Amino acid sequence: MSYSYDVAGLGNAIVDVIARTDDAFLARHGLAKGAMTLISAETADRLYADMEPAIEVSGGSAANTMAGIASLGGRAAYMGRVFADQLGQVFRHDIRAAGVAFDTAAASSGPPTARCLVLVTPDAQRTMQTYLGACVDFGPADVAASVVEASRIVYLEGYLWDKPQAKEAFRKAVRVAHANGNKVALTLSDAFCVDRHRAEFRALIEDGIDIVLANEAEIVSLWQVGAIEDAIAACQQHADRIWAVTRSEKGSVVIGGGTCTHVPAEKITRLVDTTGAGDLYASGFLYALSQARPLAECARLGHVCASEVISHYGARPEISLKVLAAARMK
Amino acid sequence: MSYSYDVAGLGNAIVDVIARTDDAFLARHGLAKGAMTLISAETADRLYADMEPAIEVSGGSAANTMAGIASLGGRAAYMGRVFADQLGQVFRHDIRAAGVAFDTAAASSGPPTARCLVLVTPDAQRTMQTYLGACVDFGPADVAASVVEASRIVYLEGYLWDKPQAKEAFRKAVRVAHANGNKVALTLSDAFCVDRHRAEFRALIEDGIDIVLANEAEIVSLWQVGAIEDAIAACQQHADRIWAVTRSEKGSVVIGGGTCTHVPAEKITRLVDTTGAGDLYASGFLYALSQARPLAECARLGHVCASEVISHYGARPEISLKVLAAARMK
Repeated sequence: MSYSYDVAGLGNAIVDVIARTDDAFLARHGLAKGAMTLISAETADRLYADMEPAIEVSGGSAANTMAGIASLGGRAAYMGRVFADQLGQVFRHDIRAAGVAFDTAAASSGPPTARCLVLVTPDAQRTMQTYLGACVDFGPADVAASVVEASRIVYLEGYLWDKPQAKEAFRKAVRVAHANGNKVALTLSDAFCVDRHRAEFRALIEDGIDIVLANEAEIVSLWQVGAIEDAIAACQQHADRIWAVTRSEKGSVVIGGGTCTHVPAEKITRLVDTTGAGDLYASGFLYALSQARPLAECARLGHVCASEVISHYGARPEISLKVLAAARMK
Repeated sequence: MSYSYDVAGLGNAIVDVIARTDDAFLARHGLAKGAMTLISAETADRLYADMEPAIEVSGGSAANTMAGIASLGGRAAYMGRVFADQLGQVFRHDIRAAGVAFDTAAASSGPPTARCLVLVTPDAQRTMQTYLGACVDFGPADVAASVVEASRIVYLEGYLWDKPQAKEAFRKAVRVAHANGNKVALTLSDAFCVDRHRAEFRALIEDGIDIVLANEAEIVSLWQVGAIEDAIAACQQHADRIWAVTRSEKGSVVIGGGTCTHVPAEKITRLVDTTGAGDLYASGFLYALSQARPLAECARLGHVCASEVISHYGARPEISLKVLAAARMK
């Protein structure tokens, strides 16, 4: 069949509010460094009032991944829920301007567009405090079957796995994709997220996921093992699907088709803000996979994309990844 | 008397929407490169729909200047009008987080918070398209007499000089400042702005302004002369007040107290986006002047502040100008 999209992503549609901070701020507010924590509107207001001047940039994990795929020259679509407010307009403008198809209707009642307070410490680590707003009402009606049918890969953001209607939306996406012979990918998103939903994530993967993306902490949490080597061994026992495990400066490990390959990271020349590193790894990995490239090459393209996004603030590419990849993938 | 503030600024309270662009985009939309143009909500929507992905950062000329003064360690206050919406919250958060007192009430009816589409070309020039929104209703009620009384210098943004109630607000600020023996500064803001209001600007300066800030195009327009040398000569004929004329890479000329001094620019090591160069020159100049420093030193501090803001996107300092000035003003 002919596909309209290489990859379609489902996720939390979020505007990032990025400010530099220091460890004292994190300590004062009791924030877990490097993690993503869900917060209430009240907590968001309290933290915001104490934060440094900020910049607003569209974000959202799967949305960042789709923007990266479009920047690589791929055809990407996105489904996620914003409210009909100024930040919702900002989100819609930016993802469309990035070249990603985005037609999920804006909510006209309920909470405002989601925002994520991204606190970047001098070591380039990011600590994320997310007020989910309009995202909490994402449901099956927001999954456009025609888009999922027309996408080689549908990509599910683990963060979204929380409310019953979001889980139902995932199941609809899996059902429609597989009915059309398309692949389904899942990112585990966050170690705390895996911890909350371990049994359900395992069942979801078992029943409907073809490709799993995770970082070390997430994959160790999924399999409840003590060491990354044990987690990779556990993935190899499920080698009928593809696994991509990112290991920061150690590169990534890709498993599938009877092979397990350690792919070294790209040389990093500039490190400012690690926000989006995993999201952009997914861009390169999934786009190359949608083009039927070998797994090791998928991982390398993931590393190239991640190296760009950590060189500046914000979780979306600032330069053409297509041009960057052409230079770096020789 | 004892002052609560070194400088208080009045201006258009605006959130900048910054995107990279190219000359072809400017040509396609018929935009005057390097200028600030006022646009309608409809034109703003049309341009925005065609723009690249953007970042939102608080801006506004006098607001940027006040943020710079706070970053220098000065005490700054700001008066400007936002609407009670998300961008209004962003503006309020950022200016307060920068350390500037800001208590103008948000409008609860009328147009939304102003935004400026800032299009940055590869030559680092910025072309600004401003939808004024809530700013158009700025009036005398928004000028807090208690703040003006308690400020060594009150700083008026020429951009605001348009509607009758804004002009009345300026006159109120001049009246209150002078009744308390305080100084009044004015920036001419933009050459087209001067062209629209030349006679009124001249009368305003004659009647109530102690310190005038302008760039070459603005001062040439004010005096309707052919060359910058003639404009500087015209300023010298009004040497009972202070004039600071910025000349980009040629530095600036300061006139006052019977002297006319050419001060060379700082060495520029990184040039990304010239947005805010004039605003931050005003930060350094006005703060030093409020501390009774010699004019040439005021200009030098202006150059140091401007050099920081052009090294990155956005018109507010990203590092402590106090620390920078301590290193550079030795």
